[in-house]
Amino acid sequence: MGLDYRVRCCPDGLITDRRRVVEVLDCTIRDGGCTNAWQFQDDLVRRTFRALAGAGVDVMEIGYQTSPGVFEAGSVGPWRYCREDDLLRVVDPDVKGPMRLSCMLDMGRVEASDLRPASDSVIDVLRVATYAHDIEDAIRLCEAALELGYEAHCNVMAVTRCTPHEVDAFLERLRTSPVTNIAVVDSFGAMYPHQLRYLIRKYKNWLRPDQKVGVHLHNNQQTAFANAIAAIDEGADIIDASVFGMGRGAGNVPLELLLMYLDDERHDVRPVLDLIDDYMELRDELKWGYQVPYAITGWLNRHPRSAIRRMRLDTPAGMAFYDELTADRPRRRHHKPEREPT
Amino acid sequence: MGLDYRVRCCPDGLITDRRRVVEVLDCTIRDGGCTNAWQFQDDLVRRTFRALAGAGVDVMEIGYQTSPGVFEAGSVGPWRYCREDDLLRVVDPDVKGPMRLSCMLDMGRVEASDLRPASDSVIDVLRVATYAHDIEDAIRLCEAALELGYEAHCNVMAVTRCTPHEVDAFLERLRTSPVTNIAVVDSFGAMYPHQLRYLIRKYKNWLRPDQKVGVHLHNNQQTAFANAIAAIDEGADIIDASVFGMGRGAGNVPLELLLMYLDDERHDVRPVLDLIDDYMELRDELKWGYQVPYAITGWLNRHPRSAIRRMRLDTPAGMAFYDELTADRPRRRHHKPEREPT
Repeated sequence: MGLDYRVRCCPDGLITDRRRVVEVLDCTIRDGGCTNAWQFQDDLVRRTFRALAGAGVDVMEIGYQTSPGVFEAGSVGPWRYCREDDLLRVVDPDVKGPMRLSCMLDMGRVEASDLRPASDSVIDVLRVATYAHDIEDAIRLCEAALELGYEAHCNVMAVTRCTPHEVDAFLERLRTSPVTNIAVVDSFGAMYPHQLRYLIRKYKNWLRPDQKVGVHLHNNQQTAFANAIAAIDEGADIIDASVFGMGRGAGNVPLELLLMYLDDERHDVRPVLDLIDDYMELRDELKWGYQVPYAITGWLNRHPRSAIRRMRLDTPAGMAFYDELTADRPRRRHHKPEREPT
Repeated sequence: MGLDYRVRCCPDGLITDRRRVVEVLDCTIRDGGCTNAWQFQDDLVRRTFRALAGAGVDVMEIGYQTSPGVFEAGSVGPWRYCREDDLLRVVDPDVKGPMRLSCMLDMGRVEASDLRPASDSVIDVLRVATYAHDIEDAIRLCEAALELGYEAHCNVMAVTRCTPHEVDAFLERLRTSPVTNIAVVDSFGAMYPHQLRYLIRKYKNWLRPDQKVGVHLHNNQQTAFANAIAAIDEGADIIDASVFGMGRGAGNVPLELLLMYLDDERHDVRPVLDLIDDYMELRDELKWGYQVPYAITGWLNRHPRSAIRRMRLDTPAGMAFYDELTADRPRRRHHKPEREPT
């Protein structure tokens, strides 16, 4: 094992190590918006923007861009569309510094013809979220974004549902594309660190040296932050995180943990810690984070939607949910006590 | 990398691997008791006992044994003492099966002369919790436990505060002792997986082949479960966990995640999932689990007591807590926006 692994025990016993320098992308408003239909108040988005800029976060993903009419009027907040006038209400160029702003594009929910040129926008990065089977269309959308002057990323979702052959196929397609950043996306929170290590190595081996590898991780099995550590260690270049892990279901890598871990002098965790106080009320209301139903769908490598529905019930009843989702699995032949547990 | 690391992508994309077979020790009542002064109702302890036996958990740690008068009368519940008549109210021998019962012994809080013989008790295992500097007394207490007919474990706490020399010294002492199980204890939730891997290898290299290595992990930085995975992978023999991670501060490895991960036919996660419903009310009241102050003490490799005090305030104010604990660290020289974030 290399130098970076060496444990240095300081005189006071503190275990410290050097970290690789990586980029940090905050997706609080974009992915966190999945929990409140992107109905954040302008003031909270503004404070988030300022805190992230102050923290030296590299990229803030402020929402999605979406073609007009895709959602019923009033069903989603402004950060599902990120119209330029909405963005201008919260983006203060005096505070922005080197932080780039990103929007996500959902395949099928936005037409390339609805994108505006980068020169007319405060947005710097467009990230295309796609399933493997839509990779051709996704690359075309990335190409359109590049032509409009954006940095273009491609996030291939749900890679844990792909066969190795399917992964090879989309990586080969991306390798010969002009896309500059490709993320390993653990949509279902299904991965353990050694599995993510395998995929990071695969992506890095397959792609060109000038193509950066990112990770977007979910916390269904409480592995998101540890998976981020494993990814950094394997050479990932850009790590997604969010304030207090805010995100759909079990949420994401907590930004505060990532910044403390990186301990990079380009970053400052303090504005993020301050910002968390602003989010705690939302947390009590929206309740993202670890829960048994999310753990079960993560473990089973399934979309969390059934778990999210379950968590809206008064009694999520984890065992019944487990039974429902594992009806086709052989029952464990475990030690049977003489009487059944009650 | 060896066979255990090989990712098998099944036709449906599910990533699965084989796991090493390890022992699982549940410490819900013992460590969870730190959150409610061991004031569990008999009925909940009884249901926990039955569920753990039904789940095929290897060891249930049901509390501490403590010499009379150590705590003020009425200040702690029965599971801080584990008198035999208290145990007999909840332990049903018809249900117990091969599950062993354990009690922890805190150095300085119990005299060897107050221990009863194993033949007069339902308890099978005594685990001595000690700091490195008390190792001689701890080994003497383990020897007394062995003479009384118990299995004797030694948990050296707060190893992340020890220098490498101190670790070598207590391992050498344990190697020449009759203690059969030694646990790596991340008391402060300070460890990242690669650091735990280093310590597991160190313990396993140093100790005799017949001495088993365990891990007791805390979740301050959301690494407890991932650390357990790393420990299993490095050859740990026995893993501590608790129901929904119940434990002091940020809590422990969630038992349900561990059992699903191990996917061992000796175990059955279903009674544990059912039991979690019984614990959710306690969870809402006692609020163990991830919070910013716990993350900060974990990151700083400090005892969580200041964070636990902080969490009792109405406004934990993470940034102020961070400033308080890092007053002696150099401030990060990060990108400064032209105006300070508000």
